[in-house]
Amino acid sequence: MKTEELRIEDLVSAEFIARKVKEISDTVGDALAVNALSGGVDSSTVTMLGHRALGDRLRTYFIDNGLMREREPERVVSIFDHLGIKVNVVRADEIFFSALKGVTDPEQKREAITRTFYNDVFGRIVRDSGIRYLLQGTNYTDIEETVAGIKRQHNVLEQLGIDTKERFGYSIIEPLAQLRKPAIRRVAKALGLPGEIYDRPPFPGPALVARIIGEVTREKVETVRKATKVVEEELSGVGAFQFLAILHEDKVTGVREGRRDYGQQVEVRCWDSTDAKTGSPTELSYKTLHRLAERITREVPSVVSVTYNITRKPPSTIEAV
Amino acid sequence: MKTEELRIEDLVSAEFIARKVKEISDTVGDALAVNALSGGVDSSTVTMLGHRALGDRLRTYFIDNGLMREREPERVVSIFDHLGIKVNVVRADEIFFSALKGVTDPEQKREAITRTFYNDVFGRIVRDSGIRYLLQGTNYTDIEETVAGIKRQHNVLEQLGIDTKERFGYSIIEPLAQLRKPAIRRVAKALGLPGEIYDRPPFPGPALVARIIGEVTREKVETVRKATKVVEEELSGVGAFQFLAILHEDKVTGVREGRRDYGQQVEVRCWDSTDAKTGSPTELSYKTLHRLAERITREVPSVVSVTYNITRKPPSTIEAV
Repeated sequence: MKTEELRIEDLVSAEFIARKVKEISDTVGDALAVNALSGGVDSSTVTMLGHRALGDRLRTYFIDNGLMREREPERVVSIFDHLGIKVNVVRADEIFFSALKGVTDPEQKREAITRTFYNDVFGRIVRDSGIRYLLQGTNYTDIEETVAGIKRQHNVLEQLGIDTKERFGYSIIEPLAQLRKPAIRRVAKALGLPGEIYDRPPFPGPALVARIIGEVTREKVETVRKATKVVEEELSGVGAFQFLAILHEDKVTGVREGRRDYGQQVEVRCWDSTDAKTGSPTELSYKTLHRLAERITREVPSVVSVTYNITRKPPSTIEAV
Repeated sequence: MKTEELRIEDLVSAEFIARKVKEISDTVGDALAVNALSGGVDSSTVTMLGHRALGDRLRTYFIDNGLMREREPERVVSIFDHLGIKVNVVRADEIFFSALKGVTDPEQKREAITRTFYNDVFGRIVRDSGIRYLLQGTNYTDIEETVAGIKRQHNVLEQLGIDTKERFGYSIIEPLAQLRKPAIRRVAKALGLPGEIYDRPPFPGPALVARIIGEVTREKVETVRKATKVVEEELSGVGAFQFLAILHEDKVTGVREGRRDYGQQVEVRCWDSTDAKTGSPTELSYKTLHRLAERITREVPSVVSVTYNITRKPPSTIEAV
């Protein structure tokens, strides 16, 4: 069944919310459901819709895969605690890092995340609990790009012909499948989520894995996490659609204290876009660019070189992996 | 013996030229000498000094290593033909590409170029001709950086304790060892070289090898040669010290005609500097940056992503390899 886009100009948030709450209620009935909350606008919106429909019968989990940004798990739990929603944190870093060991191809890395997430981590939660429904925040762009073969989104399964009921033991409900990001932000706001969530720049499903070229190790995650912190601190005020730091595998020659230093390179991307379908590099001032380079090379000592991406999408994409 | 810098404020070109011409004459006597001309300001200046001192007793060779920019050999031969200096072109691409096969470390790539250049290519010319003197354009920054261990310059040998007479069969004369780039440009102009030479941005000794991360192949040289052409066309008018395109080994996700395209990345660097010792990225306009990205991704079809380096030297260096 082909999903039809619900355009933002045709969206009435209150009606959309009422319809989705009813659909979730009707589908799940008196049963239990689970969802995974990452703190992104999509999964946060689904969490709110699900709790409106099911109350405590929706069990919300934060999967701490070891691949999130600095202090992200604590922050997400705290925001939802204030909204009266209990979030269960599942430590799963070991299983994710071992699934990623030796994997260098971007599509295989994304596949490793998908498999570990749905089969091992969620599969276990579902099998242990007997829960039969999974709510998730797949959006229209995710489906479109995955079906077109541009980029495998970790949360797109049924659209690729994967029978989740047979394969993982649960059905998937996707209340946001018709919406693109700007429409989801509007619904998020209407649901009472704070600006920190509804205005939050997109962050990829595979988390910092999408920000590392080549094999993912704990050390590289720690490096790109530090660079990400700098980029988010420096660029959160510029009004861009998304901004990110990518750790390259290529090493380049640098110089520190008068001696050769063969080090790492970080690429910064900052996008002007409305829907991630197309994008242009934000025209950041050189003052900002210099500060980014200066802070990253100082605060992430293995890095000797910082670049800024100047390519439009297409032919680039928002993320490099 | 430590080389002392001759600062540009203390340089009187006519005196310097007269002194160096005499030194070369005194050293070589009635014998023959050779030099390799790349077309850069350093080797061009040495060619002029050598011909003033020795006339036809200086044999000037252009080593076509297959690693130069588009139409560079023809252009250099033509410029010097107009100055009345005959340049002998030596085709040596096979030997250089086979020396570079499988070599990925930057220092080992530079070492392979050095060894092939001095031992195999020049060694053969010298052995075949019985010539005992080699003139070359080593400058003060080359020596300083190599001795400090920042970057191995291909033309620095004696300063590293290499006895070229014993090892390769000839002595090396370095008339520019005391000068940095701006001083050499002034001498070049005083020697009657055209602006195309004395104002020419620096180009590294290892040529396009210095612009390729990872193993060097004919295909990669062709790719970076195309990107270099675009960068030089777009940036030659901005008054920068140096500008270059680097082909990365890391591949990134792109999108072409609505489909995923896992392609190559080119990094552009453009430097404000006076002596290459320190440098800042030139504050190019976004119009220029967009045109660079647009042209490179269009004219070099394997490339889906273009970045601009925003790091100062230090901790970056001018070249990446």
